[in-house]
Amino acid sequence: MNCECEMVARVSAIALLWTATAASANEGMWMPAQTAEVGAAMRADGLQIDPAQLSRLDAAPLNAIVSLGGCSASFVSPQGLVATNHHCVFRSMQYNSKESQDYLTNGFLAKSLGEELPAVPGSRIYVIEDMPDVTADMLKGVSDKLNGFARYERLDTNRKALIAACEEQPNRRCDVGSYYGGASYYLQQKLEIQDVRLVYAPGLGIGNFGGETDNWMWPRHTGDFGFYRAYVAPDGSSRPYARDNVPYRPKNWLRIASKGVQEGDFVMVAGFPGATNRFLTADEVRFNFAHYEPLLQHLLSDYAAQIKQATAGNREAQIRYASILRGVENYKKKLAGDLAGADAIGLDGRKANEEKAFRAWVTKYPVRQTRFDAAIRELDAMVSENSRASLARLRQALLDRAQILSSARTLYRWAKEHEKPDEDRESGFQDRDRNETVDQLTQIERSYLPVIDRKLFEAALDEYRRLDAKDRDTAFETTLDQIGLDRLYADTKLADTATRLGWLGKPAAAFEASDDPFIKLAVALYPGDIAAKHAAKDRAGRSQAARAIYMHGQRAYRQAIGRPMYPDANGSLRITWGKVAGRTRDGQIWMPFTTAEGLLAKETGKGEFDAPDAAIAAIRAKDYGPYVAPALGTLPVNFLSTADITNGNSGSATLNGRGEFVGLAFDGTLEGVISDWERNADRSRSIHVDGRFMLWTMDKIDGASRLLKEMGVLPASRS
Amino acid sequence: MNCECEMVARVSAIALLWTATAASANEGMWMPAQTAEVGAAMRADGLQIDPAQLSRLDAAPLNAIVSLGGCSASFVSPQGLVATNHHCVFRSMQYNSKESQDYLTNGFLAKSLGEELPAVPGSRIYVIEDMPDVTADMLKGVSDKLNGFARYERLDTNRKALIAACEEQPNRRCDVGSYYGGASYYLQQKLEIQDVRLVYAPGLGIGNFGGETDNWMWPRHTGDFGFYRAYVAPDGSSRPYARDNVPYRPKNWLRIASKGVQEGDFVMVAGFPGATNRFLTADEVRFNFAHYEPLLQHLLSDYAAQIKQATAGNREAQIRYASILRGVENYKKKLAGDLAGADAIGLDGRKANEEKAFRAWVTKYPVRQTRFDAAIRELDAMVSENSRASLARLRQALLDRAQILSSARTLYRWAKEHEKPDEDRESGFQDRDRNETVDQLTQIERSYLPVIDRKLFEAALDEYRRLDAKDRDTAFETTLDQIGLDRLYADTKLADTATRLGWLGKPAAAFEASDDPFIKLAVALYPGDIAAKHAAKDRAGRSQAARAIYMHGQRAYRQAIGRPMYPDANGSLRITWGKVAGRTRDGQIWMPFTTAEGLLAKETGKGEFDAPDAAIAAIRAKDYGPYVAPALGTLPVNFLSTADITNGNSGSATLNGRGEFVGLAFDGTLEGVISDWERNADRSRSIHVDGRFMLWTMDKIDGASRLLKEMGVLPASRS
Repeated sequence: MNCECEMVARVSAIALLWTATAASANEGMWMPAQTAEVGAAMRADGLQIDPAQLSRLDAAPLNAIVSLGGCSASFVSPQGLVATNHHCVFRSMQYNSKESQDYLTNGFLAKSLGEELPAVPGSRIYVIEDMPDVTADMLKGVSDKLNGFARYERLDTNRKALIAACEEQPNRRCDVGSYYGGASYYLQQKLEIQDVRLVYAPGLGIGNFGGETDNWMWPRHTGDFGFYRAYVAPDGSSRPYARDNVPYRPKNWLRIASKGVQEGDFVMVAGFPGATNRFLTADEVRFNFAHYEPLLQHLLSDYAAQIKQATAGNREAQIRYASILRGVENYKKKLAGDLAGADAIGLDGRKANEEKAFRAWVTKYPVRQTRFDAAIRELDAMVSENSRASLARLRQALLDRAQILSSARTLYRWAKEHEKPDEDRESGFQDRDRNETVDQLTQIERSYLPVIDRKLFEAALDEYRRLDAKDRDTAFETTLDQIGLDRLYADTKLADTATRLGWLGKPAAAFEASDDPFIKLAVALYPGDIAAKHAAKDRAGRSQAARAIYMHGQRAYRQAIGRPMYPDANGSLRITWGKVAGRTRDGQIWMPFTTAEGLLAKETGKGEFDAPDAAIAAIRAKDYGPYVAPALGTLPVNFLSTADITNGNSGSATLNGRGEFVGLAFDGTLEGVISDWERNADRSRSIHVDGRFMLWTMDKIDGASRLLKEMGVLPASRS
Repeated sequence: MNCECEMVARVSAIALLWTATAASANEGMWMPAQTAEVGAAMRADGLQIDPAQLSRLDAAPLNAIVSLGGCSASFVSPQGLVATNHHCVFRSMQYNSKESQDYLTNGFLAKSLGEELPAVPGSRIYVIEDMPDVTADMLKGVSDKLNGFARYERLDTNRKALIAACEEQPNRRCDVGSYYGGASYYLQQKLEIQDVRLVYAPGLGIGNFGGETDNWMWPRHTGDFGFYRAYVAPDGSSRPYARDNVPYRPKNWLRIASKGVQEGDFVMVAGFPGATNRFLTADEVRFNFAHYEPLLQHLLSDYAAQIKQATAGNREAQIRYASILRGVENYKKKLAGDLAGADAIGLDGRKANEEKAFRAWVTKYPVRQTRFDAAIRELDAMVSENSRASLARLRQALLDRAQILSSARTLYRWAKEHEKPDEDRESGFQDRDRNETVDQLTQIERSYLPVIDRKLFEAALDEYRRLDAKDRDTAFETTLDQIGLDRLYADTKLADTATRLGWLGKPAAAFEASDDPFIKLAVALYPGDIAAKHAAKDRAGRSQAARAIYMHGQRAYRQAIGRPMYPDANGSLRITWGKVAGRTRDGQIWMPFTTAEGLLAKETGKGEFDAPDAAIAAIRAKDYGPYVAPALGTLPVNFLSTADITNGNSGSATLNGRGEFVGLAFDGTLEGVISDWERNADRSRSIHVDGRFMLWTMDKIDGASRLLKEMGVLPASRS
């Protein structure tokens, strides 16, 4: 599923619940603390360790599971080696590549610790240490009567206070997540590893074999894996990159299974699924599929075409925009799957029926009606307001496709927020956010070319101008007209990284006096941005008040009808499980495994199907060593399972019933993405890189024996 | 494969040969006379009738096989009922539809002969009567020394003379086809049925279920069938539509098999495959995939987007342009399959190796070298000249997207040709071509809206202007600049059908004096058109001279290495056979049948997956009557076979080993289209509508018992 989703992030961030008609044993993205509830079902499906062990954040396997922020990963050696997806280290490959040294295409392997390269700025490894329930703290001072903007602000103040307290511990990052639509809150306390290095990733011909053509598809033959390493100061404390930093020693790491999986085997996936929307109201779902996603798809589709056209024939430009383009293409394809899937399963009708049943349950007894009815009506009443705002927001956000403008807005906002005490500043503009902001501002240098940016900005402006006048920003448009696009790009100094970073921390007055054209635009946009933010917070406050009650109702309802409950994905640590299983539909069977011979059959020697010569030769020679799957009689490449994952799970370790590493989750199938809206066990399959294919590539193709020894796969004595 | 290909016809019309590494029993599009050669293989595969019977054009089953010109079809009743694909009657459905009476969407069933509707103008049913070898007549006066334009003209004169002699018989249409690159020629003598009526076709929700999404794909659930009827004068002679015409009584018709096919069964397909390119030189193939198809794909892709944008939100415009759009979308998808397939099988390398082997065989003995070497070198020498011309031609042809301009060019050319005696006129402009020309000029009224045409023309002009100056027509551009697009569309009278037809037969001087802006453009373009035509004929003459010898060499070579030989598809009657068979690739199995339950699973109630309510209800009730496939235990919808078909085979009857009707060929799969360039038995599968699904739809859904009785499926007594 090739995340990189930050530029296309969903509007709705409120975590909601899943409401399929029946919950089967292997559905759900469970919080660690819930594994006790579902332990019997997991045991029945093949879990061999004590389910209670899966509730412990301080023991294996969970304390080997880490977040990369957007991707999932895991420690696989005592020296802080981290396994994740190739597409999760893609930007670091891109960052370290240049035309004369194309790691992106050819792969990268550090032959020693000393050769390991700094990952792209902003790369972090987060180790989860604790996850307490902070609902009571969050709701302090949040009375039933507090609503709208004031409610939002109170919750935000409480949230910031909780985070600040948690982050008084050095090198910790903490976040407070909303669960069940704001009915519960949990705090994630994470050790923040700031020195992340690129250790190894195979070439594109393995790591992204099949490219966009095969993305979201089965059969699949992608070796979507790569390795980072966590580095810390010699005393074990976290600190930014320094030459004499040493590998981090995690308390636990995953053991590589000595035997891979086969059809029907139990597998579980531990990681950080980003967002699902399994419990919006029927009207909200209808709006999404009738209006929101179609518009977004249109905008992304045009954007992809614009990038391709603007960078055609220019290899340097193509490398710079590769990551943005990949994210756009991926999301576009997912939206197509969403839209087709909603039609295919008749989502509108299903949601309407479920809601009818729930509302009938509510109205059956006055006590329920008293408690939940107003909240339901409030959510219904807000649909058109929220819908209108989110459609307008899609086009308003296009202005940030001008990367320097986006930077200038961040910088000026930073200056304005810094006129307040730290605890009163907007999230994202506090002192704790400084490093990340620096990284963001720096990264642009690797994905920006003025001539391309200008073309994309011009196209974005065309779309922006289709907004109703009241949704556009007159101050911005007037300023832009005065400057003109030629001067905008010719006169700005912000394209230079040092200059750009130099503005971080300057007072607002300096911005207001500046004649840098992008800064002028940012200053012009500011009042409108603040007003829009205020309105959004007011809507969010009202939504939270209603939805938390609504979700209490849903939980009670589901308890009454005997259906299990887990919160919608929200980027926090979850466990899901399932079985290695293919899929049958009319006229077609998907087998659960693909093999090296199938990779060879797809190989064309060019474009997206261009495997390395060494891999082709080894497959032809059937040089598979000990990595053969006995039931297949050959080397497996990818496998399917029924585990319930989504975006953000990319890079998640796939574990067998003993908690051992057997592969990495890296994708779903286009037909299954509708599960983000309603879990559909028949259509949905997760796609995993088989651990044996990873090890084979490392051993036979790329000569990564140093790492295999470290992981305990090869004896330390082998030369 | 949704033909409608006239607007996107291939440049190369020269018939060439297939050169895969090994010929398996069920490869090849065999001429009827060749079935004796392959009879033993057919018998071994399950043919139950005498193979010699398949050589007879005057006996069943072949004399029940008819051409619709672009599509294939067959008589299935003694009253001239003709079965073909839904997409082959699509334009007649469109022609008879209007907003208030949407047969296109809802289907059409005539309850009696009297209700059968005239098909779209230009519809013909051709009954093949004879197919003699006319090579000697064609080569009369064509010496080795005659080359270039003169050679082309001599062949053309001979061809026209053969056709004229054949067409002295009333109501006959005759054509002379080139086989083996002009090494042989055969004449097809066809009875031309001019009164074709639309009898029955299911609604789009059956006939095009799955739409563009499923086009070229498997699993498939499309009821791609429809029925015409041939009408003649009461005395049995062919004549145009007249109220008192009566159904034609064919000498033979296909019997509907009482038992359908199952996996592994022998099937054969008899029809009119349009064009394959299995014997171009390696350089010619390389040019096609490196330059020609990519440019064509780009142009078609833009065209599809332009049509969609121009007709968005305008149902009337969408109906008018539906057929053009469908043709474009279909061809675009096929090109994508071609390009991907060429990469996947490594076509360039395979062709290079084959050619190397052939050329080594040639150079082994001086006698071969003397005979074939000059031809080989001549073909090689022509590649760049032909390549350049065909790329330029792609953009030059865009001007005809302005439908009125295309008509005006035809009309003026008609006037100029009519200054000569009939036998000297260009093919297409002889008296024999008058009816077809009238039909073409008339049809525009159903697919034209000035505002849409103008938008498409403007876009076409943008692409045209990218041509090098020497490939553009200055006279045309100057005239267009003088007129301007506003006046072009405002002032023309040619959008009126009667006016347009009124110009047919007027003298050239009348055109030259006209101030109709489209006629002015046509007159301006004429000298350039004639010069281009002359150059093309010169190239064709040189090509034919060289290629006929080259193909003699290829035939000798293949005979020497024991490989069977059949000519490339060229629109003439062919027989192919194979087995009902799925396909296995790594990670995936295609089962040979789809079923009604699978159709239901795809059903969404909207867009391309919107089956009629009656069909849904009958499937839910499992009301399948006698149409169940015993091995499946349910109603089959489509099946796969290894029969070797291509565009033009659409609507071909699929026959069992006894020569009985078991379904209709209607599509291939995207992965298999590369077989047009090199037959790949592993990748290629034909898709057929199962006869049982046709009968079920007619019986249970659409109440077509009148037709089922006529076909002998229901007893005549059933009410």
